[in-house]
Amino acid sequence: MMVYTSLENSKIKELKKLQKKKYRDATGLFLVEGEHLVLEAYKAGLLKTLILEENTFYPLSIDTISVSSSILTHLSLLEHAQPVMGVCRKKKEEEIQGNVMMLEDIQDPGNLGTIIRSAVAFHIDTLILSPSTVDPYNEKVLRATQGLNFHLNILQQDLKEAILTLKEKKYQIIGTRVTHGKNIKQLKEIQPFALIMGNEGKGMSDAILELCDEVVYIDMDPRCESLNVGVAASILMHDLDK
Amino acid sequence: MMVYTSLENSKIKELKKLQKKKYRDATGLFLVEGEHLVLEAYKAGLLKTLILEENTFYPLSIDTISVSSSILTHLSLLEHAQPVMGVCRKKKEEEIQGNVMMLEDIQDPGNLGTIIRSAVAFHIDTLILSPSTVDPYNEKVLRATQGLNFHLNILQQDLKEAILTLKEKKYQIIGTRVTHGKNIKQLKEIQPFALIMGNEGKGMSDAILELCDEVVYIDMDPRCESLNVGVAASILMHDLDK
Repeated sequence: MMVYTSLENSKIKELKKLQKKKYRDATGLFLVEGEHLVLEAYKAGLLKTLILEENTFYPLSIDTISVSSSILTHLSLLEHAQPVMGVCRKKKEEEIQGNVMMLEDIQDPGNLGTIIRSAVAFHIDTLILSPSTVDPYNEKVLRATQGLNFHLNILQQDLKEAILTLKEKKYQIIGTRVTHGKNIKQLKEIQPFALIMGNEGKGMSDAILELCDEVVYIDMDPRCESLNVGVAASILMHDLDK
Repeated sequence: MMVYTSLENSKIKELKKLQKKKYRDATGLFLVEGEHLVLEAYKAGLLKTLILEENTFYPLSIDTISVSSSILTHLSLLEHAQPVMGVCRKKKEEEIQGNVMMLEDIQDPGNLGTIIRSAVAFHIDTLILSPSTVDPYNEKVLRATQGLNFHLNILQQDLKEAILTLKEKKYQIIGTRVTHGKNIKQLKEIQPFALIMGNEGKGMSDAILELCDEVVYIDMDPRCESLNVGVAASILMHDLDK
């Protein structure tokens, strides 16, 4: 089997580019690192090509390329490259179904990771991200969620348009603010719902807040000015998961 | 006013040592960096000495030392040292009161920071840390909580002993597991309570679980194997905050 050893090889150059969002968007492909994520991508039907360090065996019958350890290090964003990587196809956007979480311009990959993990935990089916939200195929998000995002229908869409579609489908649109609105504990059972979280610093924009049927907050001691957005989103999703 | 400029000065050497838990434990002192934390420590009555970069003014009438910018960089754990730092006395341990959160061997400063922030938000008064839990005066914890820990009564104590004391005071002891026990949503109002969270990897020890009156879990989709301990603790505290 041929082993790729040159950083100048066009195939390797193409793979390297997938570290950047621009190229992931252009090709619809992304990289995963490590056995667990590769296996999760395979089970989700997203694994396109297996990348193995030479002399490594991994029992998946799928298109495979073999690379030297220096190529692996070149392609990896981890401190210590792992001998198994994969090229995957992004999950196809499906029609909106089930309960929905919408994110307006969340910037931090760790926060998106926390929200994805809790969304799977608390039975959210569809995640709608504003175009300026951090890429769910960013390697830090993938690592934080360990493939849980493969279980969600993730759409990237203008939120105003998405809300109009959701309203036609009789969704209740629930906005969030740090204070004001209705205490989440007082909210009656709502199905189906679309819960919206805003940007880490600025919160939700007024333009989106105006379109909401309800605005909720988490009641807390005023000495704690706000919670991390991932923590707040998790509390709200848990409360809404009836 | 005298300006400290030498790294070899014994006063500066003493301050530098406070970056280590061993010396914080031995002296009962800790360092804070930046105006906000210094002010919060001052308001809590914990600020002992103000450390200012020469030619910086900060309007607190308290013992002050002036240092060169290289000394400031030497004492700082931030990428960019700030011109205001402080030496503080650890908050005195008070008698247990109000609702209690107990942590068994939490290792990650970020997780402890999240838990402290949510504890203040959801009306926990006392935090009891097992001796192997990360130091709440660790600079990462201080930075994550921005002084919110000055609002909590934090004790460091053997958890078994603490539980015996709490039982005498008629506290309900609530343990946590990822599965098994009672769904937190089914738990009736309990006052006063002591909620226990376990270590990130291992969870709670059997020895402590045995002493609990109730064991609760957060109901979730099994595809999400577990939540981050800071997120889980926040959800539970919010649910118990009636």
